[in-house]
Amino acid sequence: MNYKKYKKFETVKLKDRTWPDNEIVKAPIWCSVDLRDGNQALITPMKIEEKVEMFQLLVDLGFKEIEVGFPSSSQIEYDFLRLLIDENLIPDDVTVQVLTQAREHLIRRTFESLKGLDKAIVHIYNSTSILQRDVVFGKGKEEIKKIAVEGTKLVKELSQEFEGKVILEYSPESFTGTEVDYALEICEAVMDTWGATPDNKVIINLPSTVEMDTPNVYADQIEWMCKNFKDRERVIVSLHPHNDRGCGVATTELGLLAGADRVEGTLFGNGERTGNVDVITLALNMYTHGIDPELELSQMNHIKAIYEKDTKMEVPPRHPYAGQLVFTAFSGSHQDAINKGMHAYHERGQELWEVPYLPIDPADLNRQYEPIVRINSQSGKGGVAFVMDTVFGYQLPKALQADFAKAIQNISETEGEVSPERIYDTFKKEYIDNETPYKFIKQRLIDISDEGEYERRAEVTIEDRGVMKTLVGYGNGPIDAVKNAFNSQEDFLYTELINYSEHALTAGSSAKAAAYIQLRPKGSAVCEYGVGVHPDITTATIKAMISAMNRIHKYMKKEG
Amino acid sequence: MNYKKYKKFETVKLKDRTWPDNEIVKAPIWCSVDLRDGNQALITPMKIEEKVEMFQLLVDLGFKEIEVGFPSSSQIEYDFLRLLIDENLIPDDVTVQVLTQAREHLIRRTFESLKGLDKAIVHIYNSTSILQRDVVFGKGKEEIKKIAVEGTKLVKELSQEFEGKVILEYSPESFTGTEVDYALEICEAVMDTWGATPDNKVIINLPSTVEMDTPNVYADQIEWMCKNFKDRERVIVSLHPHNDRGCGVATTELGLLAGADRVEGTLFGNGERTGNVDVITLALNMYTHGIDPELELSQMNHIKAIYEKDTKMEVPPRHPYAGQLVFTAFSGSHQDAINKGMHAYHERGQELWEVPYLPIDPADLNRQYEPIVRINSQSGKGGVAFVMDTVFGYQLPKALQADFAKAIQNISETEGEVSPERIYDTFKKEYIDNETPYKFIKQRLIDISDEGEYERRAEVTIEDRGVMKTLVGYGNGPIDAVKNAFNSQEDFLYTELINYSEHALTAGSSAKAAAYIQLRPKGSAVCEYGVGVHPDITTATIKAMISAMNRIHKYMKKEG
Repeated sequence: MNYKKYKKFETVKLKDRTWPDNEIVKAPIWCSVDLRDGNQALITPMKIEEKVEMFQLLVDLGFKEIEVGFPSSSQIEYDFLRLLIDENLIPDDVTVQVLTQAREHLIRRTFESLKGLDKAIVHIYNSTSILQRDVVFGKGKEEIKKIAVEGTKLVKELSQEFEGKVILEYSPESFTGTEVDYALEICEAVMDTWGATPDNKVIINLPSTVEMDTPNVYADQIEWMCKNFKDRERVIVSLHPHNDRGCGVATTELGLLAGADRVEGTLFGNGERTGNVDVITLALNMYTHGIDPELELSQMNHIKAIYEKDTKMEVPPRHPYAGQLVFTAFSGSHQDAINKGMHAYHERGQELWEVPYLPIDPADLNRQYEPIVRINSQSGKGGVAFVMDTVFGYQLPKALQADFAKAIQNISETEGEVSPERIYDTFKKEYIDNETPYKFIKQRLIDISDEGEYERRAEVTIEDRGVMKTLVGYGNGPIDAVKNAFNSQEDFLYTELINYSEHALTAGSSAKAAAYIQLRPKGSAVCEYGVGVHPDITTATIKAMISAMNRIHKYMKKEG
Repeated sequence: MNYKKYKKFETVKLKDRTWPDNEIVKAPIWCSVDLRDGNQALITPMKIEEKVEMFQLLVDLGFKEIEVGFPSSSQIEYDFLRLLIDENLIPDDVTVQVLTQAREHLIRRTFESLKGLDKAIVHIYNSTSILQRDVVFGKGKEEIKKIAVEGTKLVKELSQEFEGKVILEYSPESFTGTEVDYALEICEAVMDTWGATPDNKVIINLPSTVEMDTPNVYADQIEWMCKNFKDRERVIVSLHPHNDRGCGVATTELGLLAGADRVEGTLFGNGERTGNVDVITLALNMYTHGIDPELELSQMNHIKAIYEKDTKMEVPPRHPYAGQLVFTAFSGSHQDAINKGMHAYHERGQELWEVPYLPIDPADLNRQYEPIVRINSQSGKGGVAFVMDTVFGYQLPKALQADFAKAIQNISETEGEVSPERIYDTFKKEYIDNETPYKFIKQRLIDISDEGEYERRAEVTIEDRGVMKTLVGYGNGPIDAVKNAFNSQEDFLYTELINYSEHALTAGSSAKAAAYIQLRPKGSAVCEYGVGVHPDITTATIKAMISAMNRIHKYMKKEG
């Protein structure tokens, strides 16, 4: 590997640094950029209702500053902000932040999106690094500075016309690749233009847009900036680290030691490339040092579930605090030490949490220590799906996973840990062995492709509340024909097929197949899965369909 | 959240620290603990053949020290080491390392496992932290020190009888929770007992067994140790960081600045809880600073594929350097800057890599920059499966993903990037539209459950090299009956069903289903998937089966 094609970027080296002597003693101002940096890096960006749900989650977690988007960049970003304002979804103690490049038409459009807000953070940026000045903009230092100053002037002018309060945030983007003295010069020019004072502070955001060096170097850069501002009191120093070298969390922590006041990041480190810094890990690192994290993170599995639903990303199993495996101890000696530590903790009635290998009490996150992978009320769909797959061979479709996990959660909330056998029995009872009101008796599928319009004629014999009936239907395939057989009955619910899948439970053609059918009565919100298991795939499918119908009956009755 | 139940562990604070002024200028001695710490944290630990494959990969990557297990802890760990020795799988320039607690019977058993080796690192440990001394061992400082010293004595004694060379490694486990002066005292006692000299160094491994503080604190601890050893020259200072606070990489880097010589870690940070430190990220962080990483990491997708296969873990999409998404730029301004940067880099014929948002040239890892998610020769099965699922709705079984990815790779190696349409066309041609030698004409499945032994009679009409044939078979279900129809023909290959799955391609019962069938001719190594698509799930399945048979014919012909 040709390592000679690389050279590290040389930046300031402090002689008189103080940050390594400091300690983090309080939480910074948190600003979530999930709806901006996080969202823009998704393969499937969030839909507007997902954005609303994410915004609500961020509010619930306690974020007081939330970057909601780049409204001048696209209609959906614009519409989302308008929705938040028009539907009055922004609590009084939450300030929304909007991002825009420091360009005239974008700033003007940004202000249009803000109408009706009491206050907003307007976040302008331009790239200032040596590399980007050269290869992207082909501009000198003065010209680049001018972009920032002109942008600030326009924000100031539009702010005066704006009915609410505007807080200015400026980012010298690619700060870590910018000479510190030049970064300082631009930031001071922005603040002077704005007329920053201790009562009208400007947020100066110093992004590690690309993580370029070991975290101590970023800390040196931050400390240098903090020490060299003309008036430190008129600045809120904000960090915005990325994670290219896998050190986003460390970079932020050392940046806070170096004097920063504020952190921009995302839940679970979502964001472009390797992601933005993970705010949850930062907050819980503080928490486990006895510092109020000023975020409410105790419902970890819930946070994870909403995050995964909206972003379609998954929190990896070894992700700090949140991953599926982080409270699992596979090693016997670890298990032994944890048991002894837990025992001592409870027996002594200790106030301070101190248990080997568990830097946090999993209960604080509504999770549990697991000497092996176990299923309890906090396992979520991942754990339940894992057991069903690895232990019993059932590959549940996603929607069924979520549905079934709720059933298991109900059990575990009253009974505690749920054994794999209990999980399986519950699955069988809930989805497979449903025989009321309809019980499958037998089926015949007849090939009628020679006879006319349809391919298959289905004759399904069922017992309907004690009465034997043979229903007949026609269709292009067995599912279609069987569904039509049911739908042809006046006293039956008319259902639509939402999803279907099937797989062999074990190898070999004489083994059983598992079929999953999701049905919805026309016009209803109830939507149920049924599962059928049978050596004959067609029978498995029909049984799944009947089970789904029986579940619909059960839940519509409950609702009605 | 009750943050008051936590307090950080107070440890040494250096007055005269030098590490923040240092720079990493060369790679440390790397030691892989994938086969020990990595393996023990897996839900499904590696089988012996997977361990051999992993060991081979580690050797190929250039690891010269590899911890192969804890042979006294279980028979499989013992047998694996014996296999490496007896089959002569350990290259001359690689030293294997074995872990054992500092307990007599375990040390004796460990030495039995080593017979026949020229050299080995014997790694003994005991836990030394304040917490573990108290709640786990209930022992005082002297007693805990005695465990280490007695263990060292026994290793020394057994080494003298051993025909090869033994290098001693000692870990004060839970070092980060141990008073530094006490840790030093134990380490010195171990070295004195061993008779360590600059020519007979002892590896002193200082694990961050649980990550307990910001990375600068670990660096202080390491620098304090390095400065206070009686004779620094008789010590190889080794780091063994975990990742509980998400700072494993940073902790290691600052530990190296603080004077360490050696790093123990795993590929992609596998390991107990949040994992061990990720050696690959560390090495590539050095690489991008112009430092020879002394590991060969250019075949990143290959490394990832072997890792994922053996560990059953997945490298997350935002994992530095290796994740699926880390070279993807979704943002328009990033894409623009990257394009301009790449252009400048090439046009100027620059020796040094400098492109915005790309801290490494993806080509150095045999990967590519992707302005959107694209498929090329380096995409691997994940990318291909992703396109087939998200763009076309096909949920390919894992074995089929791997098989199909190879087909796409072959194309992309000659043609470059492969468009989604091309991927789909290839899939269709390879797995769906196979009509030689057998072409599906029609099928009839007759319910014969009233008539005797079997449930179904299948009549499948095919065209076999121009000749129409109707094959008849009996079975418990359509798959079984159809397979038996084929297997009843003397001139046909007798196949077994290996796997089967099926799903709706879109919602609605009149939509098509996709069926996947994997068949293997009895006694053959060839094993092929066929795919069938049809509104009728039975027909889809039969078509899949015929396609699989046709593929078997094709590949057996090629082989023969």
